[in-house]
Amino acid sequence: MSFRTIEWRDDKVVMIDQTRLPGEEVYCEYADYKSVAEAIRGMVIRGAPAIGVAAAMGVALGAREIIADTYESFFRQMENVCDVMARTRPTAVNLFWAIERMKRVADENRDKPLDQLREILKTEAIRIEQEDLELCKAIGRHGAALIPEGATVLTHCNAGGLATAGYGTALGVIRAAHDAGKKIQVFADETRPWLQGARLTAWELMKDGIPVTLISDNMAGFFMKRGEIACCVVGADRIAANGDTANKIGTYSVAVLAKENNIPFYVAAPTTTLDLSLENGDQIPIEERHSREVTHLHGFPVAPEGIRVRNPAFDVTPARYISAIITEQGVVSGDYVTGLRGLVAP
Amino acid sequence: MSFRTIEWRDDKVVMIDQTRLPGEEVYCEYADYKSVAEAIRGMVIRGAPAIGVAAAMGVALGAREIIADTYESFFRQMENVCDVMARTRPTAVNLFWAIERMKRVADENRDKPLDQLREILKTEAIRIEQEDLELCKAIGRHGAALIPEGATVLTHCNAGGLATAGYGTALGVIRAAHDAGKKIQVFADETRPWLQGARLTAWELMKDGIPVTLISDNMAGFFMKRGEIACCVVGADRIAANGDTANKIGTYSVAVLAKENNIPFYVAAPTTTLDLSLENGDQIPIEERHSREVTHLHGFPVAPEGIRVRNPAFDVTPARYISAIITEQGVVSGDYVTGLRGLVAP
Repeated sequence: MSFRTIEWRDDKVVMIDQTRLPGEEVYCEYADYKSVAEAIRGMVIRGAPAIGVAAAMGVALGAREIIADTYESFFRQMENVCDVMARTRPTAVNLFWAIERMKRVADENRDKPLDQLREILKTEAIRIEQEDLELCKAIGRHGAALIPEGATVLTHCNAGGLATAGYGTALGVIRAAHDAGKKIQVFADETRPWLQGARLTAWELMKDGIPVTLISDNMAGFFMKRGEIACCVVGADRIAANGDTANKIGTYSVAVLAKENNIPFYVAAPTTTLDLSLENGDQIPIEERHSREVTHLHGFPVAPEGIRVRNPAFDVTPARYISAIITEQGVVSGDYVTGLRGLVAP
Repeated sequence: MSFRTIEWRDDKVVMIDQTRLPGEEVYCEYADYKSVAEAIRGMVIRGAPAIGVAAAMGVALGAREIIADTYESFFRQMENVCDVMARTRPTAVNLFWAIERMKRVADENRDKPLDQLREILKTEAIRIEQEDLELCKAIGRHGAALIPEGATVLTHCNAGGLATAGYGTALGVIRAAHDAGKKIQVFADETRPWLQGARLTAWELMKDGIPVTLISDNMAGFFMKRGEIACCVVGADRIAANGDTANKIGTYSVAVLAKENNIPFYVAAPTTTLDLSLENGDQIPIEERHSREVTHLHGFPVAPEGIRVRNPAFDVTPARYISAIITEQGVVSGDYVTGLRGLVAP
């Protein structure tokens, strides 16, 4: 891949600005945790695994900003840093997973001098980023086997290199199938309102030379019904214990249409996206974002002034629509409760 | 309604420019048939019944433009005018229906002086417009009974006053239910790529004081699954003998999601939208429009340059997903082959 989603460089966090793609490839530097939190909220970076990495790096930055004489003071301020990061976006569980991991590492190293602890936290954040890339590659290896030779694969939103530390989850599966010489092509839903498919998935697949065709979300069913789609692969923001999966708004519709047309529908996600504390998807909090995402495009209004808008950013696809969940540890299908629990067993 | 979609005025055809709504309410005048054809192709006017009216008025304008000494010359040129109108858009059958009706009237009046024939054609075009308004009101009367008190009704695209001579088909049903005091509200799919829902449906319902909420197309399933949608009503561009219905791209997806969630899905259309010459929907020609509709918004690119695009403008919803077809002559459900044939029986 010829871009870097996020990295720690010279004690700053550097991210490609996803609000400006594909028109401009701009990298932004963040020197403090509050601006990282703002970048997550404003979707400079998005995608559950990438948000997790950003949150970890934000916490590491925050730890460097803390001025404290005592451990008590340090940890009290550290709690505050974590709270700020946690309040950015509610749905993707990787955010909370990463914050918890950073807290645990801090706790495990309470006995270290504060400067050393700050270094340990920085190292941990970088490790989370590196691990995420490895998770994606393992997801790709497991998932590629499910993609038929010559397949046209439909994907929704962007679960690509831009949504992770690199390589991607759904697009990781697609990249691995492509790299295996399967001569596949991709149909990318544009993914309103934020156009992650048009702006990000199309961009990164074109960059990698993987054939991609852009369609609007409401065309997916048309091509499924015509028999032009072999399978669907999407990412996930949070997967409950029973396999119910929260992902970008519109994923549920893709899954229903796939089932109706007997097309396999796969979710690709690292186990860091599992939330086994939730019995089912009804308990996953769904973020509702600003109406302006729907009513305006590039600052230009596309709807009457004053129109009432609903803008849920995610939906939940019940497990019964999901043919398999592809993780870095292997592919789970059928009895998700047992299968998913098995993945995270100690 | 406080706007006029299309009218014949001072030997010109006047249309509200639907490419510029909702930002600007501009009326365009057309003095020759070729510019009317261009207006249909460029979607200054759209919506199957409105296209039918525009085609009829275009033919009437064309008849006035013909310079001919003999009937043979007149009718030869008249054929050419009709061909130009017929080549504008392929899917909506009302276009062809209106052209055929104008041809038949011309043929029935072959014995009249040419100037009188031109007047007869003008009168016929105006009659088609007036009839269409009456058809819509009758559709509304029949359909309103199907809309529950207090219902939230989902609609897709714009099958409103702007898509007809006035009042609308799907929105005619909604208007009639609203006028009957049923306290309904509407969820309007924005309807990518052309945003008929955001730009037109939202605009005309707000103008009429009918509560409307705008969502992107991929949110419809989310609200259906949550139980927030009582029923769906859409228009049609062409209905085959078995009830299969071509309508704006995305309609099929709405229908599948409605079925999956046990929500009634209604098609509202005048019998001028029936094409009983086609056994089923597979035979309906589907227009594919320019990629720029998907890649650009207000001239601004929202996808990488050079991206491959598919842009089918319509899809076909198989009759099995349609709870009922609401026409000006009554509501048909169940056995569509018999029911639809009965509507047009002599």
